Amino acid sequence: MDTFLRQLHDELGQDVVYSAAQDIEPWLSDWRGIYKGQAQAVLRPRNTAQVAQALRLCQAHGMPVVPRGGNTGLCGAATPDGSPRNVVISLDRMNSIRALDTIANTLVADAGCILGDLRRAAAEAGRMLPLSLAAEDSSQIGGNLSTNAGGVNVLRYGMARELVLGIEAVLPSGEVFNGLHTLRKDNTGYDLKQLFIGAEGTLGIITGVALRLQPQMHERAVVLAAVESAQQALEFFRLLFGVCGPRLQAFEFFTDACLDLVLAHAEGVQVPFGQRHPAYVLVELADTADAEGLQALLEKCMEQALEQELCLDAVVSSSLAQLQSLWRLREDISEAQRADGPHLKHDISLPIERIPEFMESAAQRVQQAEPGCRPYIFGHFGDGNLHYNLSRPAGADKSWAAEHEHAVADVVFDEVMAYGGSISAEHGIGQLKRGAFLRCKDPVALELMRGIKQLFDPGNIMNPGKVL
Amino acid sequence: MDTFLRQLHDELGQDVVYSAAQDIEPWLSDWRGIYKGQAQAVLRPRNTAQVAQALRLCQAHGMPVVPRGGNTGLCGAATPDGSPRNVVISLDRMNSIRALDTIANTLVADAGCILGDLRRAAAEAGRMLPLSLAAEDSSQIGGNLSTNAGGVNVLRYGMARELVLGIEAVLPSGEVFNGLHTLRKDNTGYDLKQLFIGAEGTLGIITGVALRLQPQMHERAVVLAAVESAQQALEFFRLLFGVCGPRLQAFEFFTDACLDLVLAHAEGVQVPFGQRHPAYVLVELADTADAEGLQALLEKCMEQALEQELCLDAVVSSSLAQLQSLWRLREDISEAQRADGPHLKHDISLPIERIPEFMESAAQRVQQAEPGCRPYIFGHFGDGNLHYNLSRPAGADKSWAAEHEHAVADVVFDEVMAYGGSISAEHGIGQLKRGAFLRCKDPVALELMRGIKQLFDPGNIMNPGKVL
Repeated sequence: MDTFLRQLHDELGQDVVYSAAQDIEPWLSDWRGIYKGQAQAVLRPRNTAQVAQALRLCQAHGMPVVPRGGNTGLCGAATPDGSPRNVVISLDRMNSIRALDTIANTLVADAGCILGDLRRAAAEAGRMLPLSLAAEDSSQIGGNLSTNAGGVNVLRYGMARELVLGIEAVLPSGEVFNGLHTLRKDNTGYDLKQLFIGAEGTLGIITGVALRLQPQMHERAVVLAAVESAQQALEFFRLLFGVCGPRLQAFEFFTDACLDLVLAHAEGVQVPFGQRHPAYVLVELADTADAEGLQALLEKCMEQALEQELCLDAVVSSSLAQLQSLWRLREDISEAQRADGPHLKHDISLPIERIPEFMESAAQRVQQAEPGCRPYIFGHFGDGNLHYNLSRPAGADKSWAAEHEHAVADVVFDEVMAYGGSISAEHGIGQLKRGAFLRCKDPVALELMRGIKQLFDPGNIMNPGKVL
Repeated sequence: MDTFLRQLHDELGQDVVYSAAQDIEPWLSDWRGIYKGQAQAVLRPRNTAQVAQALRLCQAHGMPVVPRGGNTGLCGAATPDGSPRNVVISLDRMNSIRALDTIANTLVADAGCILGDLRRAAAEAGRMLPLSLAAEDSSQIGGNLSTNAGGVNVLRYGMARELVLGIEAVLPSGEVFNGLHTLRKDNTGYDLKQLFIGAEGTLGIITGVALRLQPQMHERAVVLAAVESAQQALEFFRLLFGVCGPRLQAFEFFTDACLDLVLAHAEGVQVPFGQRHPAYVLVELADTADAEGLQALLEKCMEQALEQELCLDAVVSSSLAQLQSLWRLREDISEAQRADGPHLKHDISLPIERIPEFMESAAQRVQQAEPGCRPYIFGHFGDGNLHYNLSRPAGADKSWAAEHEHAVADVVFDEVMAYGGSISAEHGIGQLKRGAFLRCKDPVALELMRGIKQLFDPGNIMNPGKVL
């Protein structure tokens, strides 16, 4: 055993340090099996002090460090690169709730807590942690913040960033940034915690988080509206936003092609309209109480929408079962597309008002570049976030996706940039989009980011090959 | 005229550069006349390019730069220090709205726009810009963001930071950081705009802002509740938060002593209770529509509060006039205290659930240090933000405040730190709290802030003597 490993063992204890090949194997790839790397050791510290010790040693020996949360990311940010010197630091054993307060409406937790566990703890206390996403029962809150996760409630509650009151993080030097407070107001200097949010582990390791909680929403009301175009969907959104105000919590869009896909691949789904339409919008309102008032508001709003010709048809859910079956039409799209075979995903965002223009222009560019490819466009329209997914042309081989990945991404991202959008809405950069990020990002911003990276991590040990 | 001034004149034009003593005099002090400095020139650029040119020249000549917004700050951050080399750059001529969109609900504006003008523009378009504060008709939005302003709606909408979608800023080098987008989701690297928010002009000059808008709230309902203690106020808050949820937009606390002061100094105010109580809480709900539903919700909630003994008595407003007269009891406190004579203000914040403990402990410490001094405690309880103000002991000379300022601040701030609070909730650091900030801030955080300052402003020309 070499000096470095021996020191890790001595300082952290045997039960924290894993270095046998069979022990570290499970930590070397992402959950989808797309990325695969190497490492000399996996550390599973039990507390912040051990994370600090580990980083101090890694820095002293110049060993690259890969922080690991629940491994649910889509960009390979938590998978080591090819260097056999990597040290993976997993937060999975740091999974205690440190405090939950229903007066201050705050939750303080170790970074390794599972998001779903935190959501349940909040609910048991009569509060809501409004970060919710498909992987919530395996993703860790530290990873959620490191990627500034989005999810289904962003329209109402914002990205993960907006839920954060405080962060505790260990710097590569082993020093602890102790910003784990729960204050709503603190104007004392630069807001350093913001830098760790979305940094994908390139500046340090988040070890503790303080989050704000919201009131529980006991009542929901849903409408599925048919629209003739993205532009009509947006005009409809304008009405809803003004009328339903603080209750609006989802505004999801999908094209008729997406519905086709769901009907072809999912069991027991039904189209609630007598005829098909070009696209659909699913709207959800929620409130603390008064189911009838909420339903009445939504129905009144839909009357106005139909009167003003902001939609073609609409179905308001009248039962929980119907509400859930309407949601399935939107939620089953990803699964249906997977069943259809390999395809290209683009998690992009745009200035909301420019989405229709973008969709028209991008459709042309994509068809020019890849004639016959099939677009499946859906997403969080109210946030300007599109899942701009492309499947292989009818009759093409399944290898199409892998072969055209980079060329198609270039076309899509160039269009995104031309319309002032972002090439990563909610999934981050990681390994996947690093090249595109370095190509597309404003050079002044990139230079400042490099300076910040250098300031926080002068030895360049934190998550090499990711983001910058 | 020396080389530097001549170059400014040549590059920016005569009408942008002021250097005659009588022309620059009005720009050398703060609005309260507490701070006073010197400068060699005042620049009033008309666009971002001119700000960039000005900063390039200042950096080349090593001239200190003091950015100036509406001059409504309370900490002297926009007042030059004593150096005759200072160059004040005022944003007052950059006051155009660049875009307002009611689909995306976004407002893009020059940094020199007056906050009140932006609020009115949003309202005319059927939307609301929820940043609202006493100085809104003279403060500039760039200054609001540079100080991360708070105000009366923080409980519902957050600090200024949470309203910001994008920022355009000129770095000391003259380079433009072009982060002026309106995206809701953008996970491409570190969120640099966060650093300019609350930096008080020490990292660059904000020249443009992109803000999110909210739906207009057409209906309001207010209750004034009497409570026996801060702890009871917080228990009452817990109920309100869960029941009224997204409608809750103010939870203001003040002691009976504050009410005394208002009754002594303000005209035509009335106490709505038959007897006096130890303290009071003013609650406001607001919604897009349905005045009756809102009123009914508040009344139902107050029934529960009285039943559960979470307050002693309560008056729900039944008319706009009554609503306004209830608000006066809270809003007139500052003016009444001014009328009472010089006093010491402390804009502090605390973990909300610890406010009662803090108040008890701080009262003892303050009385030990300054026997007989009169505390007037009020503030945005729901945000953990107290205005912890102290007036001279009965019979003491009016010079008491000035003579005891630093000693009292030390006592108050030590208590704040002991309870995990912040010595500046919403007013910032500026010149006023620089010493206390450097003394109280975590050393690891301070070191990172110094590194960031050095990275953005290697020549150390931006707003010297402020914050760091």
